[in-house]
Amino acid sequence: MTDVSGLTIGILGGTGDQGKGLARRFALAGLKVLIGSRSAGRAQEAADSLGAGAGAGAGVVGAENAVVAAEADLVIVAVPYDGHKTLLESLAPQLAGKIVVDCVNPLGFDKKGAYALAVEEGSAAQQAAAVLPDSRVVAAFHHVSAVVLLDPAVEKVDLDVLVLGEDREATDTVQALAGLIPGVRGVYGGRLRNAFQVEALTANIISVNRRYKAHAGIRITDI
Amino acid sequence: MTDVSGLTIGILGGTGDQGKGLARRFALAGLKVLIGSRSAGRAQEAADSLGAGAGAGAGVVGAENAVVAAEADLVIVAVPYDGHKTLLESLAPQLAGKIVVDCVNPLGFDKKGAYALAVEEGSAAQQAAAVLPDSRVVAAFHHVSAVVLLDPAVEKVDLDVLVLGEDREATDTVQALAGLIPGVRGVYGGRLRNAFQVEALTANIISVNRRYKAHAGIRITDI
Repeated sequence: MTDVSGLTIGILGGTGDQGKGLARRFALAGLKVLIGSRSAGRAQEAADSLGAGAGAGAGVVGAENAVVAAEADLVIVAVPYDGHKTLLESLAPQLAGKIVVDCVNPLGFDKKGAYALAVEEGSAAQQAAAVLPDSRVVAAFHHVSAVVLLDPAVEKVDLDVLVLGEDREATDTVQALAGLIPGVRGVYGGRLRNAFQVEALTANIISVNRRYKAHAGIRITDI
Repeated sequence: MTDVSGLTIGILGGTGDQGKGLARRFALAGLKVLIGSRSAGRAQEAADSLGAGAGAGAGVVGAENAVVAAEADLVIVAVPYDGHKTLLESLAPQLAGKIVVDCVNPLGFDKKGAYALAVEEGSAAQQAAAVLPDSRVVAAFHHVSAVVLLDPAVEKVDLDVLVLGEDREATDTVQALAGLIPGVRGVYGGRLRNAFQVEALTANIISVNRRYKAHAGIRITDI
């Protein structure tokens, strides 16, 4: 399996729960993590909160998104879908040549729950690939529960992370990265043209969570 | 859990592998199963093949799709996507008032593998609901492996069946039906507007099968 132990991981939108949860788990695994935000101050607050509250602070630093994009070896995009395209367009030079892991779920919400939003490019991941032609875009980490990632009582996370992309070395790297979270397997899940349904499945998982009062994830059987 | 032991299950397109596999498992669970096809002769051949080859023949009978739709209590739609809409339109009178379980995956295939087809109504299940306004349409059984269902060596199937629909009694019934297959759980997976991604996820499962040489399925964790 690919060695990812020396990587510095940047997380754009790392002050949100999903980004912060991933930051915590990667820092616990010994990686250096850079939390990005529009505001360097809020990014540093999020980094500090992981140190104080969750025992993962030493390796976590906060900075503006552009600084994080420039300094990290591999960049995770955990921003809200609204603003996703604009942010990535603005960071294309910093992200060139890097693996960019999109974990954005384009969802709408109404009284009946969550539903998938149509995306002109096909999916958030394909939108990232379209605006970052010089990056290696991978889709992954869509179904992680931020609550579970942030919960110090949860040592092992019961989840397979589907990893999609066109570039075998890049998907192998992200599978290995997912595997650093105890309990998690990174599983190759196909090409980016099949990313929409993986992103959209988060709406179904939210329905499961409501019906069963759970923090559901998925596992792939027979592998 | 809903009692489904007295139901007669009809399977439209039951001569295909997916339909035949489900027929086998429901017959083994003691249900009466009607296999439907355009040709009554081919339907009866499929029914006979289950009896001779797989020990499940006593409760399986073949007939034309229209006869099956009329006589069954609950009807599973396991036809190819091509022709799906036309067939259901033609059977709307026979299917009125019944639970109709759509397990059709609208997929295309090319050199790069499988991909999801766009469906005007949103998904195959929503297309069924549109042409069957007097039926109770449920989406389920998308990710079953026909090979596994038909394999006498596989006693327990390692799979959760996501069950989607608008009608609680109908989804409860189909969850119970899924639960008749040893190892399988029927899990509520949301409303029909979120069916597209469940159907389309079959393309990802095909990618998993190719990469890992598996007959992959999914499990939902934390429930």
